[in-house]
Amino acid sequence: MTISKAVITAAGKDQAHLPLQTVVDQSGRARSALELILAEVVSAGIKEIAIVVAPGEQDRYHAAAGNFASRLTFFPQPEPRGYGDAILRARSFVGGEKFLHLVGDHLYVSDHSQWSCAAQLVAVAEREDCSVSAIQPTHESKLRFFGTIGGSPVAHAEKLFEVTAILEKPTPTQAEQALIVAGQRSGYYLCFFGMHVLTPTVMDLLVEAKAALPANATDKPSNINLSDSLRKLIQREKYLAFQIQGQRFNIGETYGLLIAQMALALSGPDRDRILVELIELLARPK
Amino acid sequence: MTISKAVITAAGKDQAHLPLQTVVDQSGRARSALELILAEVVSAGIKEIAIVVAPGEQDRYHAAAGNFASRLTFFPQPEPRGYGDAILRARSFVGGEKFLHLVGDHLYVSDHSQWSCAAQLVAVAEREDCSVSAIQPTHESKLRFFGTIGGSPVAHAEKLFEVTAILEKPTPTQAEQALIVAGQRSGYYLCFFGMHVLTPTVMDLLVEAKAALPANATDKPSNINLSDSLRKLIQREKYLAFQIQGQRFNIGETYGLLIAQMALALSGPDRDRILVELIELLARPK
Repeated sequence: MTISKAVITAAGKDQAHLPLQTVVDQSGRARSALELILAEVVSAGIKEIAIVVAPGEQDRYHAAAGNFASRLTFFPQPEPRGYGDAILRARSFVGGEKFLHLVGDHLYVSDHSQWSCAAQLVAVAEREDCSVSAIQPTHESKLRFFGTIGGSPVAHAEKLFEVTAILEKPTPTQAEQALIVAGQRSGYYLCFFGMHVLTPTVMDLLVEAKAALPANATDKPSNINLSDSLRKLIQREKYLAFQIQGQRFNIGETYGLLIAQMALALSGPDRDRILVELIELLARPK
Repeated sequence: MTISKAVITAAGKDQAHLPLQTVVDQSGRARSALELILAEVVSAGIKEIAIVVAPGEQDRYHAAAGNFASRLTFFPQPEPRGYGDAILRARSFVGGEKFLHLVGDHLYVSDHSQWSCAAQLVAVAEREDCSVSAIQPTHESKLRFFGTIGGSPVAHAEKLFEVTAILEKPTPTQAEQALIVAGQRSGYYLCFFGMHVLTPTVMDLLVEAKAALPANATDKPSNINLSDSLRKLIQREKYLAFQIQGQRFNIGETYGLLIAQMALALSGPDRDRILVELIELLARPK
């Protein structure tokens, strides 16, 4: 089945402004990070896009969306309560369809000769007709930043895994005990890449998670974690993970926006020119 | 005399948005380009800053100015009519004082161990008590982008020149005939760096230039060019040019914003970390 809808979650505390920042794209043009995220989504064949934003951000996002503005539907998340809660806000939008989910604070650079990162993921999810999480082999020193899966390689398929376990930000010891995947380099684990294709069952699981929250949670409302529901998904239906040919960049980190822009420029048609400029900068006496 | 006022011209067509763009600064923080320009100005001891903006841009600029917002006075330029006209808008602000002028579409990275580019320029202008244009030796292949001076080295002073001629965007042939400066490398000329310290006489010359415009200029109002008035300044009073230890980056050019950010990061405390990230990016198979 064709996947035509996407949900971008961008309501996190301290990160609402991130997609509004300026990014020099792979052809040297200054655009908003949001435009690049939307281009990534559209490159995967997505027609309609929901953005979950903090209240009051809608106008700024609309203005930053460039040519993609007409494809957007906004859903405010009144308070930051986790990715799961954010995705739930767009439940009516996705209806009974599979959808692509992206976080709003990452930029992607594909290493594939033709396909964007999102297009690689959507192609696998359409072919396999199930939820698929994008993953990337990640050194154990960086596990503290990511959800990490355990799984078994799918026979006769490249870089595709059946998910058997999920730990959110595991320690290296936890990962060694529960998340070793056959065929990976020593010390490397398969971490979430910031994009998933999710089935309506995931929405159902998020609804269940929300219903299970303590009714009298008063001053500090509990978060609804996406990883918790994905862990339950393993029991309910087929759930795969696919290793993307590409890189992700967290633009909320120190220098993250700069490194993303360097990766974009070095992946673009003017790589040689950028290298010359870099060498000129490096050759200056310091 | 101490220089305490600056005028930033940012009303040019197609460039009003440039200072509002996001820049990763030399310590990895994402800020507006305007904040960096204002920090440059303030580092030179400037207390009060006029910004000449296109009509309607004031609120966005105020919001992008960060901690510097309280130092700003805005002057709208109703239509883009050249740097000279833009500077004239702030005439009441500068009163009878010398002032620092910066363009709004450049970022600066100092090569001096202690002083910013603007601080280097202001120090010379205070010592010499006259108008001083910041300049940089520039290859003849790039003359078409810049105002270029001819001049003679000032005795017993380093990198200081008495200005004897100015041509706006000369051809290499014009430069060779009129702008050769003793002691420069072959094929290099002294081009404007995008910052000047200007005396009240320059304001007077701009007023004269405006008065001399044809009264019945109808559909296309003439521009008031700063270089024209600086050329007249040569006849009126002492006018020097100082070669800045630093680099300027035009953030309106393709990739300009990216290259400025790379230069900033490579000049900052995390140079080694940035180099490691760069090498990792370059080591990826393309």
